[in-house]
Amino acid sequence: MLLLLLCTAALVSQTAARYTANWTSLDARPLPPWYDQAKVGIFVHWGVFSVPSFGSEWFWWNWQGRQPPDAKLVSYMRSNYPPGFSYAEFAPQFHAQFFDPAEWADIFKASGAKYVVLTAKHHEGFTNWASPYSWNWNSVDTGPHRDLVGDLADAVRSRSLHYGLYNSLYEWFNPLYLADKKNGFKTQTFVTQKLLPELYNMVVRYKPELIWSDGDWEAPDTYWNSTQFLAWLYNDSPVKDTIVTNDRWGAGCSCKHGGYFNCEDKYTPGELPKHKWEKCTSVDKYSWGYRRNMRMIDLMDLPSIIKDMVRTVALGGNYLLNVGPTADGIIPPLFEERLRGLGAWLDVNGEAIYASQPWRVQTENSTGQQPIWYTSKGTTVYAILVTKPSETIIKLLVPKTSTTTKVTYLGNPKALPWSPVGPSSGLIVLLPQLPYSPGEAWVLKLENVH
Amino acid sequence: MLLLLLCTAALVSQTAARYTANWTSLDARPLPPWYDQAKVGIFVHWGVFSVPSFGSEWFWWNWQGRQPPDAKLVSYMRSNYPPGFSYAEFAPQFHAQFFDPAEWADIFKASGAKYVVLTAKHHEGFTNWASPYSWNWNSVDTGPHRDLVGDLADAVRSRSLHYGLYNSLYEWFNPLYLADKKNGFKTQTFVTQKLLPELYNMVVRYKPELIWSDGDWEAPDTYWNSTQFLAWLYNDSPVKDTIVTNDRWGAGCSCKHGGYFNCEDKYTPGELPKHKWEKCTSVDKYSWGYRRNMRMIDLMDLPSIIKDMVRTVALGGNYLLNVGPTADGIIPPLFEERLRGLGAWLDVNGEAIYASQPWRVQTENSTGQQPIWYTSKGTTVYAILVTKPSETIIKLLVPKTSTTTKVTYLGNPKALPWSPVGPSSGLIVLLPQLPYSPGEAWVLKLENVH
Amino acid sequence: MLLLLLCTAALVSQTAARYTANWTSLDARPLPPWYDQAKVGIFVHWGVFSVPSFGSEWFWWNWQGRQPPDAKLVSYMRSNYPPGFSYAEFAPQFHAQFFDPAEWADIFKASGAKYVVLTAKHHEGFTNWASPYSWNWNSVDTGPHRDLVGDLADAVRSRSLHYGLYNSLYEWFNPLYLADKKNGFKTQTFVTQKLLPELYNMVVRYKPELIWSDGDWEAPDTYWNSTQFLAWLYNDSPVKDTIVTNDRWGAGCSCKHGGYFNCEDKYTPGELPKHKWEKCTSVDKYSWGYRRNMRMIDLMDLPSIIKDMVRTVALGGNYLLNVGPTADGIIPPLFEERLRGLGAWLDVNGEAIYASQPWRVQTENSTGQQPIWYTSKGTTVYAILVTKPSETIIKLLVPKTSTTTKVTYLGNPKALPWSPVGPSSGLIVLLPQLPYSPGEAWVLKLENVH
Amino acid sequence: MLLLLLCTAALVSQTAARYTANWTSLDARPLPPWYDQAKVGIFVHWGVFSVPSFGSEWFWWNWQGRQPPDAKLVSYMRSNYPPGFSYAEFAPQFHAQFFDPAEWADIFKASGAKYVVLTAKHHEGFTNWASPYSWNWNSVDTGPHRDLVGDLADAVRSRSLHYGLYNSLYEWFNPLYLADKKNGFKTQTFVTQKLLPELYNMVVRYKPELIWSDGDWEAPDTYWNSTQFLAWLYNDSPVKDTIVTNDRWGAGCSCKHGGYFNCEDKYTPGELPKHKWEKCTSVDKYSWGYRRNMRMIDLMDLPSIIKDMVRTVALGGNYLLNVGPTADGIIPPLFEERLRGLGAWLDVNGEAIYASQPWRVQTENSTGQQPIWYTSKGTTVYAILVTKPSETIIKLLVPKTSTTTKVTYLGNPKALPWSPVGPSSGLIVLLPQLPYSPGEAWVLKLENVH
Repeated sequence: MLLLLLCTAALVSQTAARYTANWTSLDARPLPPWYDQAKVGIFVHWGVFSVPSFGSEWFWWNWQGRQPPDAKLVSYMRSNYPPGFSYAEFAPQFHAQFFDPAEWADIFKASGAKYVVLTAKHHEGFTNWASPYSWNWNSVDTGPHRDLVGDLADAVRSRSLHYGLYNSLYEWFNPLYLADKKNGFKTQTFVTQKLLPELYNMVVRYKPELIWSDGDWEAPDTYWNSTQFLAWLYNDSPVKDTIVTNDRWGAGCSCKHGGYFNCEDKYTPGELPKHKWEKCTSVDKYSWGYRRNMRMIDLMDLPSIIKDMVRTVALGGNYLLNVGPTADGIIPPLFEERLRGLGAWLDVNGEAIYASQPWRVQTENSTGQQPIWYTSKGTTVYAILVTKPSETIIKLLVPKTSTTTKVTYLGNPKALPWSPVGPSSGLIVLLPQLPYSPGEAWVLKLENVH
Repeated sequence: MLLLLLCTAALVSQTAARYTANWTSLDARPLPPWYDQAKVGIFVHWGVFSVPSFGSEWFWWNWQGRQPPDAKLVSYMRSNYPPGFSYAEFAPQFHAQFFDPAEWADIFKASGAKYVVLTAKHHEGFTNWASPYSWNWNSVDTGPHRDLVGDLADAVRSRSLHYGLYNSLYEWFNPLYLADKKNGFKTQTFVTQKLLPELYNMVVRYKPELIWSDGDWEAPDTYWNSTQFLAWLYNDSPVKDTIVTNDRWGAGCSCKHGGYFNCEDKYTPGELPKHKWEKCTSVDKYSWGYRRNMRMIDLMDLPSIIKDMVRTVALGGNYLLNVGPTADGIIPPLFEERLRGLGAWLDVNGEAIYASQPWRVQTENSTGQQPIWYTSKGTTVYAILVTKPSETIIKLLVPKTSTTTKVTYLGNPKALPWSPVGPSSGLIVLLPQLPYSPGEAWVLKLENVH
Repeated sequence: MLLLLLCTAALVSQTAARYTANWTSLDARPLPPWYDQAKVGIFVHWGVFSVPSFGSEWFWWNWQGRQPPDAKLVSYMRSNYPPGFSYAEFAPQFHAQFFDPAEWADIFKASGAKYVVLTAKHHEGFTNWASPYSWNWNSVDTGPHRDLVGDLADAVRSRSLHYGLYNSLYEWFNPLYLADKKNGFKTQTFVTQKLLPELYNMVVRYKPELIWSDGDWEAPDTYWNSTQFLAWLYNDSPVKDTIVTNDRWGAGCSCKHGGYFNCEDKYTPGELPKHKWEKCTSVDKYSWGYRRNMRMIDLMDLPSIIKDMVRTVALGGNYLLNVGPTADGIIPPLFEERLRGLGAWLDVNGEAIYASQPWRVQTENSTGQQPIWYTSKGTTVYAILVTKPSETIIKLLVPKTSTTTKVTYLGNPKALPWSPVGPSSGLIVLLPQLPYSPGEAWVLKLENVH
Repeated sequence: MLLLLLCTAALVSQTAARYTANWTSLDARPLPPWYDQAKVGIFVHWGVFSVPSFGSEWFWWNWQGRQPPDAKLVSYMRSNYPPGFSYAEFAPQFHAQFFDPAEWADIFKASGAKYVVLTAKHHEGFTNWASPYSWNWNSVDTGPHRDLVGDLADAVRSRSLHYGLYNSLYEWFNPLYLADKKNGFKTQTFVTQKLLPELYNMVVRYKPELIWSDGDWEAPDTYWNSTQFLAWLYNDSPVKDTIVTNDRWGAGCSCKHGGYFNCEDKYTPGELPKHKWEKCTSVDKYSWGYRRNMRMIDLMDLPSIIKDMVRTVALGGNYLLNVGPTADGIIPPLFEERLRGLGAWLDVNGEAIYASQPWRVQTENSTGQQPIWYTSKGTTVYAILVTKPSETIIKLLVPKTSTTTKVTYLGNPKALPWSPVGPSSGLIVLLPQLPYSPGEAWVLKLENVH
């Protein structure tokens, strides 16, 4: 498949027109096909914020940036650190001593995800690689003393997963940024001396297939030079044919320009969006970075995750599920459990997810219970039940059957008895005793329906 | 019930003969009844070993005591600490800053356990209270700066749980102990100056209802002065009427003398023991103390825990399930999940566990599948299925039914159809579709059988 | 005097021609007069190197830069720090908790020095103020959490001392610098994005009266843009009229271009140089930064310091004596003792030093002992004895006396008997019992000689 | 000389009566002769208090013991440490990484001292050796990871210096001590389980020639079992013949019982005491332990030290001069300077000090200036001038001369002219120009006077 991708890339490359640095041109670029097929990705938030590991990855801002500060964080710092302790001083404790990229990649692979997105640099500005533009504030000069971005890249790719990098445009406390901001973004010192050189360095060095841009909202894309960067990325970068980007490239861009749309965090559209999109969400409902004091009740359980993923895919989205490793470099076993649970479900039911397409109808709720979600591959339609049916029959009102229609449930090839409901559409299926699914979701596969 | 206990205690007190400091007398003491009724307890291993949190709670010994040392630990220390770093220097990092005893006790309560046993002092000798005999090597003088034993006592008791304390007789590296050991245990400096004063202090101060003694095996009970201590404990201590002890009071005592028997760690008898016993085991299969780098595969899942607990109770044992909190004072959410899962199962099925008694037969395996375990309360017998039956009927060969026999399953009062199997014993029960049980175990309640 | 300086400055300002960015123009600038009058300054080396405080302020380079590394440092790090510990991780331990600028300035004042030069940024690149170009690698973001440059500025100036700042052009490990270096200094990323913006920021913010440039030798001045910077400094900066600079502005500049000449460290010319110069030297003979393990034998004693200073001034130089404060912010008492000793000597003998000029002859050695040094103010000549005369008379061969010639020794107004030696020059002075001088140096004042 | 001592010891041993455990007997023991001959010793305060190195070696008590606490210390801890930081947590930072016993011993030797007294255990209870009674609160289990007492012993003895150990009887915060104290010292748990076993251990292990007892004042000697301990020490210990002790053995003992008398710290009698005594004092006037923020003005200068020593010896005392090493294991160069300065003076003038005896008159002040102090060896009398005479003659009124009387000054064998003053006593000496003495003290040696 890698070979195929390369050939496709070459083909596209030959015929590709060059993009110009404006949204009309850039937005017209077709999304490289791997992305829509992948459907499920893992998001990894890891950085100096993993050291205090308290509150959230916005620790620094909520402690010392926003007004008024988060009293909980202020109190935490006052109780546990000497006066004057600064955020920069957390970095040496970002040890990552247990970080085993192979082990991480195994877990990601086992989750059924097809891509992984790591925070190469979050709003704190700390780079998880030896950025020459972030001297002494990166994971090689201090803390892990290690190229986290590169080490994970190798492990992820050797398991045939796509590799993406999260990059924050703004940096809360970078004095160059703050000076530009003070100037109403009429100066671009931060952009030309820090942000862009670093971003080019990151792309050329690690060749990500996805750039998950963030932190764009305070300034227009013209400040960030986003269109110029994207034109380079699409025309001349080493990843011009495979790179996927999102939509956070400047105030007002989100949900409007760029590659796929994230719109807002945990965006959950009510109906089928017109543009390819992605829902990013986090197992820990209150944080993307690891929180040492998270409680079980704060975490999504496996059925919620699967429901959420199914709904997202049915509505045409990709599902990017986040876990926060510890500063020691461990993916907490509870997150591992969720990811492996997801993978176990996808092992059986992935056919309804990967490379599927939204059907003409995405959901129905005929039974009065929780909705049934549909995905499709041509005339094969997948009806995904996210609640255990209370009866032994289930009624689906939307599918139009024919005599060749065949119904099974994923995990069992035996055809299930069914009969039509109305003159033009609908069917009733006689369910067997469904196997136990820790994900509490089952897929009926309807062949030859429309 | 507390009132009742107190009255019973008073009664016992009035009539109690005094025990003498020999095993014949001490072993004859009846076990206070709360213990056998409780059935399920939570074991908590917490100490300085929670700081390295690597390998196991035997970190110190495996690193610097045993010969040859554990190469993994030696390498870990070499890679992450300056040369010469000593175990004592971990103590200041035992911060316990998130320790919320109420939250812990809520989790323990929610697990369905009836007692909690905390390591007051493990083999490292560090006391989790301000022992005057362990100056600067206790949780008040360094690290948490807090009375961990006392703070948890209050929280546990206010939730009507019994409170026990683990105490290690020996201390690996205590020079007073090592000197006695070198003397072939002919001197008792360690015992008279450190161990016993400390133990008395602990009992008088915290009035535990259970002393989980450990670390006895290198020396005979005569070295430890165990019988004298127990005689005091049973005759004159403030907990003389309620205190329960185990069997680790000197080389050769285990499985032979003391209160209930632990025999060895994770002891699993093949048939009904003659003496009250307890199985202690740990969610983390490889450690009792928290390990930062534990992986999901290292952990017991909920069905295994419930199977293990059911078997233990059917064979007359108590089940003491261990979790290791972090040095920060957190019970990791994955442990919390296991405990709450256990509690959810006990909420429905606890009737078959608490205050039950082993039945005349403890198990049968008629169906060729995994065994069915029995517990009983008079003529009510509980048949506990630890595997989902593959068919809709189940055959039990041992129970002797009568016309008044009634069969239900816990969680549903509706009587189930059944019919006798043979002339003298056995019945076949027609099962409904069993509800989903995350613990994968179901209880049939058989009334009026023998 | 401050007023006077300002007036002079204004005057100079009005009439000043503008300098152009080439050495011919820049070198022609007259040195602001305060500098030659001052004669004695204190040099202060303080930075992250004060944390390891071992070896010297070149710790980082000698440990990890130069090939082969200094085995002593490698061994020190191996013995006292965990593997992988990086230099950046010393910064949080640069506490400066005892730093009291007023106390420092009092000591400097008491030393008799007239100017103070602090390392604003040494070769490590760490700035002792909140340079926006050195984010998280400066004394406000980490370590002291304090504007060291600014705090000392205020204290020094309020005691009427001139304030200078040391700035290293190169930064050993700055990746931007290393990239330029790798490019044979054909790129100037480091200079345009880091060095110069920072230097402008420093000048504008702190208005130093002296810039002690260093670390220039690896690249030509054209790489550093030195002449442009100096042209700005002399023409348009807020300190254009008072600023004094040294000669380290690019490979080959030293001893040739710039303001006064330092030539090499501890430069000691054999005869009167043609250009104003300065000898910088350090109380600790082996280091400029504080070394925790310095021994008494490693330190200059007071007589050596005074001898060295006298010789320097006699030969037309300024004397910049260095002390290294601790990372805690203390000037070690032994350094304090040396400085106060110097001040005590200058209190009595400063007349021969401050604002003096080299005499037509700088030294003579007529007595066969250690040399006598001469300074002068018009027809008043100071003969400085740096060894206690062994006899009660002293013979000076060079001065030409007249009948109005008067001889005294500083500290005592009483005229000393003298008589001429030869027909044209020379005199013999009858010495009284000289008072004890801890500096072991005495000054004979000869009025009306030539 | 060592051989001689051993022979003497053997002799004493043969004839020695045994001492009984009461003051009458113990006080009658003659002081081993080495002590009075030695005259000058070095006191070394080193312990966990060297880590905060702020305030004084009483840091712990002044911070958390006394009421009200020292506000400066409270504020220091509040400003520089997280809340709850405990004194025990300083211990891991007692690194002693530069501790070179040979270097220390060289400095002590160079000071001219004949004995060295190290704090084996100060009031904090931390032992500078691996006391089995102070587990995890000693220099081997934590901090230096080294036998400080033993390592210094070897170095000191190999330079023929006598070695003494300071031991505090009480320990401010030892809970066993506090319990005894609460019981009005009617219990002796602390003494029998901690203090005495440890003291025996120390004596047997290190065979000190001097025990400098301290911390006795809160309880009577009967609580400390002092007389029993001393009886053992004098009768049966391995150092029974050479051991010297002081007088701090219980409330009311000081200046009354024991070996020599310290009376109070820095005790300075006005006239010749009847009993051998010792003045202990410290270069740092405000602390015995190292203070990071000591200033030059806080320190005794060399002339003051020599004056003080001379006066002490003239009045029959020994002079024990204290220095506080850093937690890193360094004797600060300024202390080194004082010690070497003292040694330089003693090199020339030691004849008047070592093995001298108080003369019939200890001081006179005939000249109206600072006093002259006398010491003697038979008919040789030393008149020690501690101020430089302002004139070239000096008058001594007390010595009775004869025709054989000879006067020189130490450092020069040339006889000085003198003449008698009065009929029965007194002489006038014609002084040469005295050589420079950094100690500002000179000794006139008068032979054949009385």
